[in-house]
Amino acid sequence: MNTSEKVPGRKEAEFKEYHSLSSGIFLKKSKVLYRKKSDFQKIEVFENELFGKILILDGLVQTSEKDEFFYHEMLVHPALISHPSPEHVLIIGGGDGGSLKEVLRYPVKEVFLVEIDPLVVEVSKTFFPWLSPSLEDKRVKLFFADGREFLKKTDRLFDVVLVDSSDPVGPSLSLHGDDFFRGLKSCIIPDGIVAAQVGSPFYHLDSIAAKNSSLKKLFKFVRFYFAPVPTYPGGCWCFVFLSQQVEPLSAKREPPLGLKYYSPDVHNAAFALPPYLGRVFGKK
Amino acid sequence: MNTSEKVPGRKEAEFKEYHSLSSGIFLKKSKVLYRKKSDFQKIEVFENELFGKILILDGLVQTSEKDEFFYHEMLVHPALISHPSPEHVLIIGGGDGGSLKEVLRYPVKEVFLVEIDPLVVEVSKTFFPWLSPSLEDKRVKLFFADGREFLKKTDRLFDVVLVDSSDPVGPSLSLHGDDFFRGLKSCIIPDGIVAAQVGSPFYHLDSIAAKNSSLKKLFKFVRFYFAPVPTYPGGCWCFVFLSQQVEPLSAKREPPLGLKYYSPDVHNAAFALPPYLGRVFGKK
Repeated sequence: MNTSEKVPGRKEAEFKEYHSLSSGIFLKKSKVLYRKKSDFQKIEVFENELFGKILILDGLVQTSEKDEFFYHEMLVHPALISHPSPEHVLIIGGGDGGSLKEVLRYPVKEVFLVEIDPLVVEVSKTFFPWLSPSLEDKRVKLFFADGREFLKKTDRLFDVVLVDSSDPVGPSLSLHGDDFFRGLKSCIIPDGIVAAQVGSPFYHLDSIAAKNSSLKKLFKFVRFYFAPVPTYPGGCWCFVFLSQQVEPLSAKREPPLGLKYYSPDVHNAAFALPPYLGRVFGKK
Repeated sequence: MNTSEKVPGRKEAEFKEYHSLSSGIFLKKSKVLYRKKSDFQKIEVFENELFGKILILDGLVQTSEKDEFFYHEMLVHPALISHPSPEHVLIIGGGDGGSLKEVLRYPVKEVFLVEIDPLVVEVSKTFFPWLSPSLEDKRVKLFFADGREFLKKTDRLFDVVLVDSSDPVGPSLSLHGDDFFRGLKSCIIPDGIVAAQVGSPFYHLDSIAAKNSSLKKLFKFVRFYFAPVPTYPGGCWCFVFLSQQVEPLSAKREPPLGLKYYSPDVHNAAFALPPYLGRVFGKK
């Protein structure tokens, strides 16, 4: 870890992320812990008084110690609970390990973590307490590869695939196209499930509507669901649940103990589609 | 309307609201439309490219043209739908008229709007298109008074009371104490319902937990529910539904047409309590 990259000082006092051209979030940096450009993106970790350590990739908040549970629990558990016995799980992206720790709460046989950027994993091992113990778990197999390329080459089939991508800029761009979603479809078993983050239901309405339109051509069940994520644009995030055979609302198993946001009630509630989104989806 | 208060210019380019000492929202001002100190608070209206006109009271975002529907629909409809025939409705606060327009979608007999600050109403009539038509409705009776004092003096009983307060600073401070909530209890009919905004379930957890504790001593049914509000702290907001006889989940009537966020499915979903909040409430 190159700690010479620590650059504290007055000009570092505040991080800003624009959510639109005219709005966004600001976060005071009590301490800059890491900053470096990897082969793929700019990586920064700083300490914020309220949110704890925050990981920034290419200027966008990825995760924070204090609010990561909303996002990671809601990316992982709706899919894992809905599958009758998830044994083989693939995570694409998610090099910070937040989704991985949630998957490891289940008696899965193996988890493939496919992250494009080795430095994200190295940095997260240093700054986020959950990653190192997860990587020591013998069920975990870590690959450094582009998710789309991995899907093209692998002959493995998975019960559940989780797309823990960043936004469709930089190295995550390839994880948002039709080609990628076709790849996902071909690497799940017949009753397999894909869950992916798709953006803000307020800020990214057009791109979510476009995804709905594309995904409906590929999967029988395309169900959007929602969760609060305080540090993400608009504070409410949208995910999609994809399957050829499994309806998300049929989930009947009890979740692992110790969760903070996810519960069976929250699972069912999360899929309620507000009328304005129903109308947007209906148009396409 | 004193338009000499318009102060555009470079230093007006950005509005910032701190949600904690170390985090918050920023909103670019494409045009400052109004700014004046009333007898009660500082009032500002500016134009933002994404959110349209935004009303700020004492430095806190109250409402915006583009995202007001989340908040106002979710303050009003869960209570109005849950009451079998709401005829007499009281709104405390809400001088911007957003809640009023939602109440007027029902065949109510009268709506009392009790706002402490006449200038909020005057400003909102100028800048928000929904207020003036609502005030022309013969069912509406507008009072300029402190909500707590109004409750002490009135001998009227209401089917539904909606507390559309700002945060517990400045003139809204009196709308957050036990004394005020006892006043609410005494001015509703036996199967009456109160709905109130109570803050962010992430940023204001301690004050919500304290309210839960106080309110459970006063009302049989104390049910918290949630909705996204992009311009509010954390982007997800918490409301409370209070009644001596009515369970919110028993709502069976169809809502008015034309709503954007509220639906029967959204109504039921909104009451799902995440485990971390259940634990906070259980402790008290």
